[in-house]
Amino acid sequence: MTEKSLVHTLLTKLEQHISTHSFGSSPAELYDPITYIMSLGGKRIRPLLSLLAYGMYGKNPEEILSQSAAVEVFHNFTLMHDDIMDQAPLRRGQATVHEKWNANIAILSGDVMLVRAYDLLLPTSPELLPEVIRLFNKTAAEVCEGQQLDMNFEAYQTVQEEEYLQMIRLKTAVLLGFALQLGAVLAGAEKGNAEKLYAFGVNIGVGFQLMDDLLDVYADQAKFGKQVGGDIIANKKTFLLIKALELATGPQLEELQGWLALQDFDKAEKVAAVKAIYEQLGIRRLTEEKMQSFFEEGFRQFEGLQVNDAAYQEALRTVTQELIHREK
Amino acid sequence: MTEKSLVHTLLTKLEQHISTHSFGSSPAELYDPITYIMSLGGKRIRPLLSLLAYGMYGKNPEEILSQSAAVEVFHNFTLMHDDIMDQAPLRRGQATVHEKWNANIAILSGDVMLVRAYDLLLPTSPELLPEVIRLFNKTAAEVCEGQQLDMNFEAYQTVQEEEYLQMIRLKTAVLLGFALQLGAVLAGAEKGNAEKLYAFGVNIGVGFQLMDDLLDVYADQAKFGKQVGGDIIANKKTFLLIKALELATGPQLEELQGWLALQDFDKAEKVAAVKAIYEQLGIRRLTEEKMQSFFEEGFRQFEGLQVNDAAYQEALRTVTQELIHREK
Repeated sequence: MTEKSLVHTLLTKLEQHISTHSFGSSPAELYDPITYIMSLGGKRIRPLLSLLAYGMYGKNPEEILSQSAAVEVFHNFTLMHDDIMDQAPLRRGQATVHEKWNANIAILSGDVMLVRAYDLLLPTSPELLPEVIRLFNKTAAEVCEGQQLDMNFEAYQTVQEEEYLQMIRLKTAVLLGFALQLGAVLAGAEKGNAEKLYAFGVNIGVGFQLMDDLLDVYADQAKFGKQVGGDIIANKKTFLLIKALELATGPQLEELQGWLALQDFDKAEKVAAVKAIYEQLGIRRLTEEKMQSFFEEGFRQFEGLQVNDAAYQEALRTVTQELIHREK
Repeated sequence: MTEKSLVHTLLTKLEQHISTHSFGSSPAELYDPITYIMSLGGKRIRPLLSLLAYGMYGKNPEEILSQSAAVEVFHNFTLMHDDIMDQAPLRRGQATVHEKWNANIAILSGDVMLVRAYDLLLPTSPELLPEVIRLFNKTAAEVCEGQQLDMNFEAYQTVQEEEYLQMIRLKTAVLLGFALQLGAVLAGAEKGNAEKLYAFGVNIGVGFQLMDDLLDVYADQAKFGKQVGGDIIANKKTFLLIKALELATGPQLEELQGWLALQDFDKAEKVAAVKAIYEQLGIRRLTEEKMQSFFEEGFRQFEGLQVNDAAYQEALRTVTQELIHREK
C-alpha cells in the first residue's frame, strides 16, 4: 500500500468508527450536540497520529480505533467549551453548539463528551489502562491550563515570549504529543520511543501554532479560510505581536501601541500599518526561524526513533510535512 | 469503637485527605476555585458511603480514601457547573465560583475537577480499574442526563410523576448508589451484594429528594437553612406541585394555575394559598407515602446484604437514618 492510501484507509475506518459510535440518545438536548460537533469534520489529525504510531510498532491500527477516537472526542470537547468562553459564533463554518442550542447545553454536552472520551479508552488491556488514563489525565489538565493562560493573557499588558510558548505548548501541542505517545504505549513500544514520539508531537505542535500565527498575517487570502489579518484587527497577542512589542522602540513602539489602543479604525489600514512595523522589525523572519527551530527539534526526535514498521513512520513523516506546507 | 466515633474517625481522615490533596497550582485562576469549592464543607455523605461499604466487606477504609474523595470531587464538579446553569449566587452560604470569579473560570475549573476525579480513582488495582471506571462513567453520564432533564422540565407545561422520579433518580440518586457500589467493588464484594448496595443507595437517594421537596414546604423555619416555601414562590416543579396539578380539578385547578401564572404577588400569600390547595388534595401525605416506599425498598435491599463486618453495616444504617430524620 502506498503511504497515501494507507492514511486514506485509516481515516476512512476512523470516520466510520466515529460516525457509528453511540454517545447516547436521551435526552436529545444532551446528546445531539455531541453528534453535531463530531460530524462537523476536521482533519482528524490527532487520532490519525495515534493510529500511525501504533502501526509503527508493528500492530494493526484497527485495534485501537476506539482509543484514537477518544483523543478526537476530547479535542472536540475542548472546542465546545472553548467556543462558549470565546463567544465564538462559528466552528468549521457552522453554528457553534452554544449558538445553535444554548450555553447551558454546551456546558453539559461538553461534560458528557469528556466522560465519553474515558469510555472510549476502556477497550485497553488492564495492564496498560492505568498508564493510559494517567497520561490522558495529565494531558487533559494541561490543555485546560493552556486555555486558562490564554484567557489570562487577554487581560495582560504584555506577555513574554517564553510565557506565550508555554501557553501554546499546553493549549494545543501536548495533545498532539499525547496522541502519538498513546499509540506507542498501546503498542507496547519501549518507553524511550514513546517519549521521543511525545517530544516530536509537542515540538511539531508548537511549530504549527507559530505557523497559524504567521498564516493569519501572511496567507494568500484566496486560499485562507478566514480573514487575513484577523489577529491584527483583534489585537490578538500572537507570537508576532509579542515579539514586535518586545523589539519596537521609540516612535515605532508608540505607533504600534497607538494602533492597539485605537477603538475606531479602518481594518485594512490597521493591518497594513502593523504589517509595515512587523516588516521593519523583521518579525516574519524571526517567527519563521522560531517555528523552524521547533520543527527541527521535532524531527531530530523523529529520526532517533526505533520502529518496527517503516511504512508507518514514512506515512507519519508525510502527514506531518503536508501540515507544515499547508497554506491555510 | 462506637458507630459514632467510627464515622467521626473516617470523616476526619477523609477531610484530611481532601484538604492535603493537591489538585494543581498554576495558573491560580484554574486551581483556586477547586480548593475553594472543596473547602466549603458539606456533609461528605457520598465518600462516607464508599468508606462504610468498603469496611462492610472486611477491608480497612483508609485504603480507599483517594477513591472515595473522587466521588466527592465529582459531586462538587457537578455543583460548580450546575451553579453556572442555574445562575445561583450562593453555595453553602458562600459566593458560587462563577460569582466569585466568572463563568468561564467556573467552566474550566469544573472541567479540570472532572479530570482530577479520574486521577483519584487511579490508586485502584489494575484488575478492578476497568470496572470502576466503567461504573463511574455510566454514573457521571446519568448525572448529566438528570441535570439536562431538570433544565428541560423548566420549559414544560406539565411533568408526569414518573418523568420526575426518573429525573431525580438520575440527577441525584445514582451517585449515592455508585458511591456504595464503589466501596463494595473495591473491597471485592460478591456482585449481588454490590448490586443490592447500589439499589439501596438509589432508592434512599430518591427518598431524600422527595424529603427535600417536602421540607421546602413544611420545614420549621427556625431550623431550615433556606426560605420555607421557596419552591412554591419559584413555581419549582417538585413532586408536590406535579401531584397537585395531576389531582386538582375545576376551580381548585384554576386557582392553582392562577397562582402559577401570577407575575406579581405577595410571597407569603402565595405560599399559604398553594399550601391550602396541597392540604385539600392530601399532597403532603401522598408525598410522604411515596418517600416512605422508596426508603422501605432501600432498606429491603439493605437487609438482604451479606456483610463481613456488621459494625460498618450498623454505622451505615445509623448514618442513613439520621439523614432520614433530619429537619433541614
